[in-house]
Amino acid sequence: MPVQVGVIMGSQSDWDTMQHACEILDELQISYEKKVVSAHRTPDLMFEYAEQAAERGIKVIIAGAGGAAHLPGMVAAKTTVPVIGVPVQSKALNGLDSLLSIVQMPGGIPVATVAIGKAGATNAGLLAAQIIGSFDEEVRSRVQARRDRIRSEVLESSDSL
Amino acid sequence: MPVQVGVIMGSQSDWDTMQHACEILDELQISYEKKVVSAHRTPDLMFEYAEQAAERGIKVIIAGAGGAAHLPGMVAAKTTVPVIGVPVQSKALNGLDSLLSIVQMPGGIPVATVAIGKAGATNAGLLAAQIIGSFDEEVRSRVQARRDRIRSEVLESSDSL
Amino acid sequence: MPVQVGVIMGSQSDWDTMQHACEILDELQISYEKKVVSAHRTPDLMFEYAEQAAERGIKVIIAGAGGAAHLPGMVAAKTTVPVIGVPVQSKALNGLDSLLSIVQMPGGIPVATVAIGKAGATNAGLLAAQIIGSFDEEVRSRVQARRDRIRSEVLESSDSL
Amino acid sequence: MPVQVGVIMGSQSDWDTMQHACEILDELQISYEKKVVSAHRTPDLMFEYAEQAAERGIKVIIAGAGGAAHLPGMVAAKTTVPVIGVPVQSKALNGLDSLLSIVQMPGGIPVATVAIGKAGATNAGLLAAQIIGSFDEEVRSRVQARRDRIRSEVLESSDSL
Amino acid sequence: MPVQVGVIMGSQSDWDTMQHACEILDELQISYEKKVVSAHRTPDLMFEYAEQAAERGIKVIIAGAGGAAHLPGMVAAKTTVPVIGVPVQSKALNGLDSLLSIVQMPGGIPVATVAIGKAGATNAGLLAAQIIGSFDEEVRSRVQARRDRIRSEVLESSDSL
Amino acid sequence: MPVQVGVIMGSQSDWDTMQHACEILDELQISYEKKVVSAHRTPDLMFEYAEQAAERGIKVIIAGAGGAAHLPGMVAAKTTVPVIGVPVQSKALNGLDSLLSIVQMPGGIPVATVAIGKAGATNAGLLAAQIIGSFDEEVRSRVQARRDRIRSEVLESSDSL
Amino acid sequence: MPVQVGVIMGSQSDWDTMQHACEILDELQISYEKKVVSAHRTPDLMFEYAEQAAERGIKVIIAGAGGAAHLPGMVAAKTTVPVIGVPVQSKALNGLDSLLSIVQMPGGIPVATVAIGKAGATNAGLLAAQIIGSFDEEVRSRVQARRDRIRSEVLESSDSL
Amino acid sequence: MPVQVGVIMGSQSDWDTMQHACEILDELQISYEKKVVSAHRTPDLMFEYAEQAAERGIKVIIAGAGGAAHLPGMVAAKTTVPVIGVPVQSKALNGLDSLLSIVQMPGGIPVATVAIGKAGATNAGLLAAQIIGSFDEEVRSRVQARRDRIRSEVLESSDSL
Repeated sequence: MPVQVGVIMGSQSDWDTMQHACEILDELQISYEKKVVSAHRTPDLMFEYAEQAAERGIKVIIAGAGGAAHLPGMVAAKTTVPVIGVPVQSKALNGLDSLLSIVQMPGGIPVATVAIGKAGATNAGLLAAQIIGSFDEEVRSRVQARRDRIRSEVLESSDSL
Repeated sequence: MPVQVGVIMGSQSDWDTMQHACEILDELQISYEKKVVSAHRTPDLMFEYAEQAAERGIKVIIAGAGGAAHLPGMVAAKTTVPVIGVPVQSKALNGLDSLLSIVQMPGGIPVATVAIGKAGATNAGLLAAQIIGSFDEEVRSRVQARRDRIRSEVLESSDSL
Repeated sequence: MPVQVGVIMGSQSDWDTMQHACEILDELQISYEKKVVSAHRTPDLMFEYAEQAAERGIKVIIAGAGGAAHLPGMVAAKTTVPVIGVPVQSKALNGLDSLLSIVQMPGGIPVATVAIGKAGATNAGLLAAQIIGSFDEEVRSRVQARRDRIRSEVLESSDSL
Repeated sequence: MPVQVGVIMGSQSDWDTMQHACEILDELQISYEKKVVSAHRTPDLMFEYAEQAAERGIKVIIAGAGGAAHLPGMVAAKTTVPVIGVPVQSKALNGLDSLLSIVQMPGGIPVATVAIGKAGATNAGLLAAQIIGSFDEEVRSRVQARRDRIRSEVLESSDSL
Repeated sequence: MPVQVGVIMGSQSDWDTMQHACEILDELQISYEKKVVSAHRTPDLMFEYAEQAAERGIKVIIAGAGGAAHLPGMVAAKTTVPVIGVPVQSKALNGLDSLLSIVQMPGGIPVATVAIGKAGATNAGLLAAQIIGSFDEEVRSRVQARRDRIRSEVLESSDSL
Repeated sequence: MPVQVGVIMGSQSDWDTMQHACEILDELQISYEKKVVSAHRTPDLMFEYAEQAAERGIKVIIAGAGGAAHLPGMVAAKTTVPVIGVPVQSKALNGLDSLLSIVQMPGGIPVATVAIGKAGATNAGLLAAQIIGSFDEEVRSRVQARRDRIRSEVLESSDSL
Repeated sequence: MPVQVGVIMGSQSDWDTMQHACEILDELQISYEKKVVSAHRTPDLMFEYAEQAAERGIKVIIAGAGGAAHLPGMVAAKTTVPVIGVPVQSKALNGLDSLLSIVQMPGGIPVATVAIGKAGATNAGLLAAQIIGSFDEEVRSRVQARRDRIRSEVLESSDSL
Repeated sequence: MPVQVGVIMGSQSDWDTMQHACEILDELQISYEKKVVSAHRTPDLMFEYAEQAAERGIKVIIAGAGGAAHLPGMVAAKTTVPVIGVPVQSKALNGLDSLLSIVQMPGGIPVATVAIGKAGATNAGLLAAQIIGSFDEEVRSRVQARRDRIRSEVLESSDSL
């Protein structure tokens, strides 16, 4: 089976955050690859990656970056594969810079932005699954099953207050 | 052909913004419906809309709201159809409240957030098209053709400086 | 005696904050119940809880949540019982997202918002007591007695500087 | 019938905002009085007003102020009547200063804060009504009737998109 | 010699910050008193303190508070003695709430605001000394001597880089 | 009579704001001078002005500036005369940059910061008067008389709601 | 003479801002070219432009963009010619997003960021001139002459207050 | 060889940050000097340093400061040598105050601002090198060689995910 989701990140240090996207994809049995692709330090690789994504069969790209986070938007500029952007929490500004750099894209090139940090990475994995699930009933039912399980856990958690 | 994209908004006054999503969908020949669905004023309608979206064949939901913008996240909580959230520019805080209310979803329920205001609405339409285009080559090539056209316009615009 | 105050929170992890509301209610002898009710993970339970609150005799609901904190506003949308919203301090944005998601409600559905974190939870308990105390002289005098005691403590604290 | 709600504001210029609270109270037939009471320019009047509120039978105080908005919190410090704070939109900082000055009260003295500006003032009126309605079935049913009417208006507004 | 500077703070926990103001006053041999005076928990004491300050011969009041920091502005409203406000660093919002609550006073009642936290408290002590020094040559020369000493220390510090 | 207050501003365009300080000084019969002194465009003049202020008998300096507003802090670095800083409202960031550039001074060199814009300029004039009034009973009584007049105006303004 | 400065901008609409950089370059007789180069809509042109800049003899690049402003940082990633980034004022967030997207570059790829909007564009022109002037005495003296002229204008402007 | 880059900082405590600029200059074999020069505590030294920089042959000045960070802008006001400003991360506001105080310079006096903290200091060193490299092919090729090395490291880092 070809890789369906490409998970890329601007730096090795983003893996602490981005692994949560990969955990979800593992859990939901969606094939993916993971790579360090830096907008600023490997710009040509970034363009190459984006240009080849569609023909390689990739359905969704998840791109995480922090600070002046240009990776998601620049990948989005070079492919029509939908790109999910994960704002990695930055040191000084707590990810507000990452968030604004990713979400405030000009009209023409969208990036599907999720929350700052771990919750966002988890949701990036889920959003990729939901996108695929919109066209693949089996994936959708796995997403639904995960939700049902989580709901049960929440319902039980009241008892421990 | 069934409706592929559901465009909903929290208030009639959001139409000024959300029409830009619809214009893109019209331009790219993607079928859609548009409705006012308020999280706070018509909560039951919102839940019903979200619950039925998948079985009605809707592939992507675009939800726009401003201020304490709960519509995108609450719809996302009730469906596994991917939800794109458009932060409508609010009066006092210029949409920063809308943006944070939409994007900062907890792990488990993603919302694909785009930019504040008109650019975001335009990009919501394009993102919906790219999601569908990931599974429908014809839609993808329409998206690509639009990009090619825009690129030409930009290249020409230098002459007018 | 029926439960007068419902204390709900979006996640078990919010208990660290929300217990301070419960401590006040205990101290002021106001009957309450506490539950985990998640807007995003148990939306149907949330609606059910809100719909039944009035007929169950609940006079005030205290709802705590963090990040894209939709719980207080969505509960408020489904009941006319007054809802007090407690913004739980979030990891990346320190609760500014929680605060704006709770307080910036559109005209029509109010949420009585208090401060971020522990001080807010304490004040949520006190506000619930003051609301009840506006119609129950005994509760009011307990609130007043607590204030008198705190004032004495402050007056004495100068000596230890 | 004694006055049930006291609507006060820090300056005559806040009336543009605060009238929306009064309109709701008129609509829901709740008796109220309105006054300019400035924390900084008439501090003694403010204290006197707060001290007498309970014995005058006032059930809820609505206090609006902008900038370093001390009125709601200082009134709250001098009475156990619940105080609703309305952050008036300020010139330079758009009401973010008003909001933080009102909502970030220390543990011990709560202010029930609503949204910045007109929506907040409207909701202050509704919240006062809901507080009274929690102990007065007739007021509650008027609040409910208003909501039902608004819901119908929203449902119809979709047709005009 | 009568007390020239009154150092007050909203809570005992503000002493960690406010002691830096007192250290400066000790160093510059300016007489002062220190007290916990809470705007919200001891409002009457606050008014009394402010009302008597001028007749007691106090030349400058330094008031520190955090969060919805009303103490400096309310004291300023009740006296014409100049009031220096120190924004104490708050837990969730790092003192941005304290700063805006203190500095954004409406036209009519000024508060001389200094920086958030320790640097601000130090500078509050120095500002009080400079105000007195504007009318007392001896105090001025002590302030100048301190500056000269600090300058020498800075000049020497380059060697240790 | 020598000039008691020096009113300086970074640019001629700041006069719209700073005239409100001068109006107060006129009203309270405090002698002042006004000048454009730019930290960045006339740095030597700025240093010279600051260095001579004390010996010229100036008791308080009011300095207004916008954006990266260095004038108040740099003047304060060159004199022990107390400096009041007025953050002029800037175009893009509404004066938040001006405020932080003025108020966040390091320990050692205080600037007495007031509110952004017109209210701040008015209060700078009043603060200068209160500082002088702390050592000149006649000025103090003029400040008090102004407050009494304003209080009356506020009390009357309730009638026009 | 070859072009020394390349002035590029993300959109034709940025010209209103960026023309102020060109005016300075005209005034100081520094050769430049101006182009619309969009990071998101013409990414290949952007890379080509950056790659050829050094060999074409360009000494400084000035790049202006708004919102998720990726142009300056991406150009910087593809050339070792120094890049000056001008944050264009955006609609919703007033250029705060533009500023953070430009300035918060990761270690390795610098962008010399100037102020938001017109002042920043003016300063970008001056900074380019100062960089060239550091290696070209004639350009430096033109910059110095401009400063001298401006200083005189400021000194005279006091008279018109 | 004369010193080409002057690295100055407002306080000894800024060295933790600013050493990263010096490390880059060492690595790229660019001559520099480092000094503590405080805008507020040694203003005359600051002016003297700036005035002599050009005639001493300094090509670029790097100035780091935190809080109300006036050093870069004031040095820039006194020299036409290009000044790079490094916003040092401050305690309460995480360097947002430092950033705005440095970057929001008025038209006329530019400061080349880089990111907050360590990344910014690193980039200040690189930017200085790129500015010199624009006029010195050997320095440019060292900058390019460093980039090539970093790119290889990034490419290899994917394997360790």
